[in-house]
Amino acid sequence: MTTDDVSPGEFWFYEKHVPTAGIMLKVGELLACRRSRYQTIQLFDTADYGRVMTLDNLIMLTERDEFSYHEMLTHVPLLLHPQPRQVLVVGGGDGGVLREVIKHGTVERAVQVEIDREVVDVCREFFPWAAETYDNPRVELVIDDALKYIKTVRNEFDLVIVDSTDPVGPAIDLFGSPFYSDVYDALTADGLMTCQIDSPFYGSRRIGMIMDTLRDIFHDAGLYLTQVPSYPSGVWGLGIASKSRKNFHEPDKVRYDTLSGTLRYYNPDVHRGSFLLPEYLRRVVYRTGK
Amino acid sequence: MTTDDVSPGEFWFYEKHVPTAGIMLKVGELLACRRSRYQTIQLFDTADYGRVMTLDNLIMLTERDEFSYHEMLTHVPLLLHPQPRQVLVVGGGDGGVLREVIKHGTVERAVQVEIDREVVDVCREFFPWAAETYDNPRVELVIDDALKYIKTVRNEFDLVIVDSTDPVGPAIDLFGSPFYSDVYDALTADGLMTCQIDSPFYGSRRIGMIMDTLRDIFHDAGLYLTQVPSYPSGVWGLGIASKSRKNFHEPDKVRYDTLSGTLRYYNPDVHRGSFLLPEYLRRVVYRTGK
Repeated sequence: MTTDDVSPGEFWFYEKHVPTAGIMLKVGELLACRRSRYQTIQLFDTADYGRVMTLDNLIMLTERDEFSYHEMLTHVPLLLHPQPRQVLVVGGGDGGVLREVIKHGTVERAVQVEIDREVVDVCREFFPWAAETYDNPRVELVIDDALKYIKTVRNEFDLVIVDSTDPVGPAIDLFGSPFYSDVYDALTADGLMTCQIDSPFYGSRRIGMIMDTLRDIFHDAGLYLTQVPSYPSGVWGLGIASKSRKNFHEPDKVRYDTLSGTLRYYNPDVHRGSFLLPEYLRRVVYRTGK
Repeated sequence: MTTDDVSPGEFWFYEKHVPTAGIMLKVGELLACRRSRYQTIQLFDTADYGRVMTLDNLIMLTERDEFSYHEMLTHVPLLLHPQPRQVLVVGGGDGGVLREVIKHGTVERAVQVEIDREVVDVCREFFPWAAETYDNPRVELVIDDALKYIKTVRNEFDLVIVDSTDPVGPAIDLFGSPFYSDVYDALTADGLMTCQIDSPFYGSRRIGMIMDTLRDIFHDAGLYLTQVPSYPSGVWGLGIASKSRKNFHEPDKVRYDTLSGTLRYYNPDVHRGSFLLPEYLRRVVYRTGK
């Protein structure tokens, strides 16, 4: 357990990002605490981050800052693809990615493959967007292991968005070369994949290795950043990989305009800016000298 | 005190960013703990952030991530100005900004006005760069209140870099309209000022108010962001204001090339990208509708 009672009568959640540093949040009401077949799911209220969901004691999302993560993981590939119709979401049982996907009128079908039905059930109960999103007729929820599911689809999806847990425990194979090869095969000819990777501050080595893997398999790959104050270091690295596209910097302005009233983080400027990496990270991602 | 002993035999530093959320760091050796005329100065070792200095229990810098803050506060204005020769640093007693300023061959004189000599003394003792920086013949250290000092200089500095503590307690007037007007008067005709402001996540209202103030006084002003994992939310807002310049996006490439081997965060791409703001922040900074 990473929750400690540090003074009488107060309940705090403490996530150790590394053994000697982390974030603390004062917990209000504990709303749900369930042990599923795969993991421990906790959901609680906080004063500054609203409702927070943890899986195996790691923060997956908070109501206060989930928008920056979900918008960037979703709208960057959707506005780069010329006409995204079929979208696959891997993981993401909270429904945040799906909620953003179905904002796009071009999307005819959004399939979500989540291994843990209890995550979906808890989120439907406690996050206001989730029930509405899952009830959308364009959404198909598949409860299955994405590693198996991805092998059953070929040349079918315009986009695959990998909103996995971190590469410790069950999700580790979602960061491996065999899975990314299956994603490549599941994509149509101009398909794109995005995936969450790691903190550039704590995990730049892992980011470098995954970027190498993606470039081996795909036509091109890039890294972009978003702000997530409740994640380790407050900044998060997202990967993008393509079957044919070389340039990730030019979103579709016309389709952006139809969404812009609903967005709090994404805009075409921050899309471009998110690929402009600080020097320490550019060296790792692009294996440049110096 | 914000340091708590949360389990027997371990010493942790806990900074509350707001009353119900914050960062925790496991403390190794406590290196210095002094009470100056102005504030409490603490310096301690940590496993993940190296040496950390706090003033009145707020983290001012850590060895691990100070580079992103100091490089962006310094090189953005220095590479925008056509020929920076005279530079004034307000605050910044740790010497990190000065260390970056004197990398520029154009700089003939760098004046640092720091109110608290004890901060300089502690940093000279414990941060490897500080003594060397302060001993540079182009550096002048003035121990004085910057609010008074700034009134004594007119049309003298090409750049003013305000590396203050946060706007609580003694530094509050360094965020006010009278001080910024004095900075304006202290600058030469094509002068620029940069200043640290706040976390975009926790302090977007303050950022908006300061941007309004800067635009009232200066020809133009902008906000840009840098990563500082040890600061609240991990991302920090920096302000820039100019006496004549309108465009903050075009750094001097030739002078950049002479520095690039020494830089870990700054590059011309991240310079441009740091001004491309997420939507929630763009609305606050530029007072756009929606």
